[in-house]
Amino acid sequence: MNAIDTILAHKSVREFSDRPVEDDVLEKILKAACNGSTMGGLQLFSIIVTKDKEMMKKMAPFHFNQPIATSAPLILTFCADFHRFDCYCEMSGVATDAYHNAQAYQWAVTDAIIAAQNACVAAESLGLGLCWLGTITYNVPQFIDAFQLPEHVVPVACIPMGYPLHETSLTPKLPWQTLVHQEVYHQSSETELRTAYEAMEKAPHNIAAVNENGTGCLAGDYVNRRYKKEDNEFFSNVLKEQLKRQGF
Amino acid sequence: MNAIDTILAHKSVREFSDRPVEDDVLEKILKAACNGSTMGGLQLFSIIVTKDKEMMKKMAPFHFNQPIATSAPLILTFCADFHRFDCYCEMSGVATDAYHNAQAYQWAVTDAIIAAQNACVAAESLGLGLCWLGTITYNVPQFIDAFQLPEHVVPVACIPMGYPLHETSLTPKLPWQTLVHQEVYHQSSETELRTAYEAMEKAPHNIAAVNENGTGCLAGDYVNRRYKKEDNEFFSNVLKEQLKRQGF
Repeated sequence: MNAIDTILAHKSVREFSDRPVEDDVLEKILKAACNGSTMGGLQLFSIIVTKDKEMMKKMAPFHFNQPIATSAPLILTFCADFHRFDCYCEMSGVATDAYHNAQAYQWAVTDAIIAAQNACVAAESLGLGLCWLGTITYNVPQFIDAFQLPEHVVPVACIPMGYPLHETSLTPKLPWQTLVHQEVYHQSSETELRTAYEAMEKAPHNIAAVNENGTGCLAGDYVNRRYKKEDNEFFSNVLKEQLKRQGF
Repeated sequence: MNAIDTILAHKSVREFSDRPVEDDVLEKILKAACNGSTMGGLQLFSIIVTKDKEMMKKMAPFHFNQPIATSAPLILTFCADFHRFDCYCEMSGVATDAYHNAQAYQWAVTDAIIAAQNACVAAESLGLGLCWLGTITYNVPQFIDAFQLPEHVVPVACIPMGYPLHETSLTPKLPWQTLVHQEVYHQSSETELRTAYEAMEKAPHNIAAVNENGTGCLAGDYVNRRYKKEDNEFFSNVLKEQLKRQGF
């Protein structure tokens, strides 16, 4: 299958068969992850491979005990990483404090997400399924501790993967035209937005969520139940504090 | 070509032929960009298509007048975008202030970079070449002004693309094994790091840069010439101030 067909066939997969991910398959995924564009050629990321079920169980609470965090045969965690380059500078007799700031953090996050998405496309082209776990950006201090990450290393993406247990269906998305602007930002009208969100609003899982939780509408279900202001502000503070402690 | 071969064939391309990027090719790239994983299904990004040479000339100084910023037939700029969802919340009668924080910004950056990397893989699979411009993270206020971005929209990736003018060669990278850790972070020894950086140190363009600029070694060329502490700290402050102004 060519690259575009692989990308267009993407679906979230949260349940995996017992088949382990073979070593040669994992190696292909990791090589693809490590061949993306990178800021100035620096490759400011690290990938942590989790196969050990004890490690998965240890980290499950930090993923709020989502079943996928322990049921997947393989989890790849991508970290923004300036530590390696710092060490290289130090042993080269060069100052190591040029990249301990917000700009450098943003570069390293970008490198890590590029690597992660390359890994995803590669994995899906080999028949695997996967799902990103946003929880990696919540309990950052606990993950840093569990993975024994040094200063200037921050986990930013966490992707369980494996062979899908069964077929899953495509999740409705916004029409691509809604996300694309010509030359300058196009401010969508209320009518345009209403039409754009229609497929998401009509998706059975979203209708069920709104009805079961009495959240009134899809926007309300997001804001008042799924990702609440007080949680986001709490975890924003955790993230900002931890970025300072990691030296960014 | 399958997805992994496309990814492994990636090279930076900075010079393009006169052949424009056809509309149907651009549409395939944009559809691929819009089909990645996304935080909670929210698709927190926007893509701005630049083809207008006047727009490119206007923004060239913010890219420090790199030739590629005006010579490419097409530039895609990816923005972290919570504005669209804010508007959707507002018209749904739901509070819009749950996502004006660091956590939400990190989600939106992630969505935007996933989309950008999908676009890159799709573009390269169609014969195009490309190169990420890190300068988009430097002069953020000027880009926001030029693209007329509203609050809660921040440009995070900028990718000129087109048909390559000539063959380019692969840039030496760190061995993939250096970037991969099993279960917990592996602290590389000095010998391991020296070996890992060897191919980069021996690359003719890096040898030339170190010799011509008298920077002594590759690490020194990065720290004391390419990406200097005072510049990084200056642009870190610009970025942090602008994130506040954009409402994150």
